[in-house]
Amino acid sequence: MKRAELVTIGDEILIGQIVDTNSAWISKQLHDIGIKVEQITSISDTPEAITETINASKADIIIMTGGLGPTNDDLTKKTLTQYFDTELEFHQEVYAHIQNLLIGRGVELNELNKEQALLPKNAKILPNPNGTASGMWFTNDKVQVVSLPGVPFEMKAIIMDSVIPQLQSVSETDAIVHKTVMTVGLAESMLAKRIETWEGSLPNYIKLAYLPRPGIVRLRLTAIGKDKISLRTAIDQQIETLHAILPNEIFGYDDTSIEKEIFDLLLTKKQTLSTAESCTGGTIASMITSVAGSSSIFKGGIVAYSNEAKINQLNVKQNIIESFGAVSKEVVEAMAINARKIFNTDFSIAVSGIAGPDGGSEEKPVGTTWVAVASRDHCISERFRFGEHRGRNITRASLSALNILRLLILNKLT
Amino acid sequence: MKRAELVTIGDEILIGQIVDTNSAWISKQLHDIGIKVEQITSISDTPEAITETINASKADIIIMTGGLGPTNDDLTKKTLTQYFDTELEFHQEVYAHIQNLLIGRGVELNELNKEQALLPKNAKILPNPNGTASGMWFTNDKVQVVSLPGVPFEMKAIIMDSVIPQLQSVSETDAIVHKTVMTVGLAESMLAKRIETWEGSLPNYIKLAYLPRPGIVRLRLTAIGKDKISLRTAIDQQIETLHAILPNEIFGYDDTSIEKEIFDLLLTKKQTLSTAESCTGGTIASMITSVAGSSSIFKGGIVAYSNEAKINQLNVKQNIIESFGAVSKEVVEAMAINARKIFNTDFSIAVSGIAGPDGGSEEKPVGTTWVAVASRDHCISERFRFGEHRGRNITRASLSALNILRLLILNKLT
Repeated sequence: MKRAELVTIGDEILIGQIVDTNSAWISKQLHDIGIKVEQITSISDTPEAITETINASKADIIIMTGGLGPTNDDLTKKTLTQYFDTELEFHQEVYAHIQNLLIGRGVELNELNKEQALLPKNAKILPNPNGTASGMWFTNDKVQVVSLPGVPFEMKAIIMDSVIPQLQSVSETDAIVHKTVMTVGLAESMLAKRIETWEGSLPNYIKLAYLPRPGIVRLRLTAIGKDKISLRTAIDQQIETLHAILPNEIFGYDDTSIEKEIFDLLLTKKQTLSTAESCTGGTIASMITSVAGSSSIFKGGIVAYSNEAKINQLNVKQNIIESFGAVSKEVVEAMAINARKIFNTDFSIAVSGIAGPDGGSEEKPVGTTWVAVASRDHCISERFRFGEHRGRNITRASLSALNILRLLILNKLT
Repeated sequence: MKRAELVTIGDEILIGQIVDTNSAWISKQLHDIGIKVEQITSISDTPEAITETINASKADIIIMTGGLGPTNDDLTKKTLTQYFDTELEFHQEVYAHIQNLLIGRGVELNELNKEQALLPKNAKILPNPNGTASGMWFTNDKVQVVSLPGVPFEMKAIIMDSVIPQLQSVSETDAIVHKTVMTVGLAESMLAKRIETWEGSLPNYIKLAYLPRPGIVRLRLTAIGKDKISLRTAIDQQIETLHAILPNEIFGYDDTSIEKEIFDLLLTKKQTLSTAESCTGGTIASMITSVAGSSSIFKGGIVAYSNEAKINQLNVKQNIIESFGAVSKEVVEAMAINARKIFNTDFSIAVSGIAGPDGGSEEKPVGTTWVAVASRDHCISERFRFGEHRGRNITRASLSALNILRLLILNKLT
């Protein structure tokens, strides 16, 4: 198996101004074709750091991102051109591409863009359909270095169009199969306890990893061996057993999201959804509408962030709010039932809670959240007690509400 | 200046299942106290990789995250305990903390949690107020290794409570000053052209970096020298000049967001906001409500994802939609003006566009977006033409709408 190292270039990463999301994405693509990423390294945008990192690497191929922008602080192209002992030449077809791209965007062409058509002679040029900085593939007798722009959207297109096909044509791969089970609603240690016996009985060649994030724990199964098909069968059998242990918690596999799963369910059943959000402030609506095609299942929502909005827009009776408080079973159920009628949908989700940091009381501390989901025949509600951190509370409230909806659509709650 | 290396541990990073957000955050904290992060490295969760990385590092201090969970796939504690030639002992007060924490969350205590109270004898134990895995600070005559849990929320508390104070008390620092100018509305190359003369006149000891992301470009100024106060003055003078060149595009500094700036403006003026969103699907409302305290300025919003919702919830006249289409100046202005009345707010934002990938036409291709902002006296609208990628279109539409609102609040548009 080929060994790869990913290198991200830029002081903005080392001083913490941006998060390196490129490496995760590239790692996944390489793994999918059986190339192992052994290390990910972030370094400064200096000729010395770039040169030293190439010299120190044990990898067969280094994929570098960053440092190719049109502005003067980007030094990668110059450094690699020197390292691989070549020189820059003008590429007319690249220049024509840059011109077309910028005219289409209504952006003025300038000298900096023209310099981006100067590219190293002895490197393979990788076209960038979405941007002005071309990718470059350098090779000498020791190492291969692929240099790509750092803008995720541009980098991804070059990887898919040029890098992966080239690597696939040359790599010899061992068989590795990954499958990730997505679970919602159980904390990592509770989940670990629940599946302890199952985990203990996994064969040696299947490894399990827990990947938690707020409200969600992903369970990654990795099988290594000689034959992809039998590995895949072995993993699928283990997951079948796991389903019996986690009937309500598993919502899908691999890179899916709970909103995508709900979209697929509603689309198949030709059913529709609306939302009535207080503390989640539009987050559930924005999760649902992040899915392409969601307009066929989502009619609309109301963000009722004030009591007036709950009364005027969602027809919640003022005396119910006064008697039970805005964060109560009574109010959240009225929100869900009324929103379903207002938007004339099959389902509606409502959330009301105290996201924090202020607004808590002894009886209803920060994190207290009521969720309700209404269908034509039912209204299911549940009280949650999350933590003290606003952003996490909003995420967990949104995920919990969406999981109740998912289970109700599947008739698992009634 | 002390040199630091950050090491993240976990196959989940190397196969691209999770994005390493911890390193960016830690880097920022260290930089703020003058400690330079020279490298960020992600490695596999194996004793060999951990040991080799410590041996290869040139740093004075290594901060490791990950591999401390309660589950069996986490090997960091065991490996470091061996590397630093010590052994595990039971910590009663840590165990009591774990018990309290889990009882408060309604989580069952189990054997795995008990093992988390076993900690190395010769390491300094760093309390984890938000979780069950303690931090550990190992020291020998060559290197210091700080090992922290990978869960961001837990790691951050330990860094702020224990690591930063300890580092501050021992580090000698050179003077480095960073300031980042946040801009919205200009693509990187257009921005570079606009500020070319200014950039060329920067003194040698001030460096400029462009940090683009969808809809936003951050300009980071870094000054290095002997005296913090004079560096800060020099940077502030440069930024003052920049303001004259970018009067509408600069919305703030450093880690601010446009929604936070709008929140501060509205709070100071005691004014209120509502939203009427079609293609952004609740994203603007969720951005605004992500700000703590936003309930005092945000009354509510309507996500009108269908024509019925635009007609019934936002009182847009059916014949306007039929005559001009849902993505039009007429419809988006009606949405903004009506939402402002419905929620009785000082301002309202409305967006209607074609986020894609479907729904475009020759006249209105994917990416076409209308934005309107209504105040008591004005309604300002603007047409944008974004790209073909749904997620980016939603982000750029939301940011563009928020910037028009910001300028209107500041009386810069009327």
